[in-house]
Amino acid sequence: MDFTDILTGGQQELRRGTVVLACLLLLRRPGYGYALLDQLRDLGFSVDANTLYPLLRRLETQGVLTSEWNTEESRPRKFYRTSPNGDRLAAELLGDWKRLDASIRGLDQGDPS
Amino acid sequence: MDFTDILTGGQQELRRGTVVLACLLLLRRPGYGYALLDQLRDLGFSVDANTLYPLLRRLETQGVLTSEWNTEESRPRKFYRTSPNGDRLAAELLGDWKRLDASIRGLDQGDPS
Repeated sequence: MDFTDILTGGQQELRRGTVVLACLLLLRRPGYGYALLDQLRDLGFSVDANTLYPLLRRLETQGVLTSEWNTEESRPRKFYRTSPNGDRLAAELLGDWKRLDASIRGLDQGDPS
Repeated sequence: MDFTDILTGGQQELRRGTVVLACLLLLRRPGYGYALLDQLRDLGFSVDANTLYPLLRRLETQGVLTSEWNTEESRPRKFYRTSPNGDRLAAELLGDWKRLDASIRGLDQGDPS
């Protein structure tokens, strides 16, 4: 197996878990799928539409996002927004993230010899 | 779906991607599966044996870990150690982790209103 393939796999695994948290934080300000996709990419959470759109629907079913159709423009768009339960989830996951980060950085600085 | 279930799912996704990185950093000092499992748990990377042992074998197949049997004690144990390619992989993933962390913390501090 090529090193680049191994690295790409590892990077994808690392990012996958963070996409939910990033969506919950970003959608405290309502947004629609396509714009969110752009924001996530700009922030380094490379995710494709085939992953993001089902994820948004799943998060809505779980009650951590709410949605509303905006029909004022020529093309109706579904706007998502983080719900109060979503805020709670984001706060919990953020606490977890910070603990994992402290562990990872501690390991990195640990003397391996 | 219950909030606790949703949270547990999110936490597992968050941790899953970090286990490879944690193993590569920990195994700069040779270790065997069971001891590694304990170290990972102490550090907050809750992972079970059924996940960790196949992961270690996969990482060895990928050439980022090497292994050696220690037969000096009554019970022979397979010791794993991070290979030079594993060090390279850890350094790359760590860079990625730090960039993701900066993005997550930036989003957290962003004004959502």
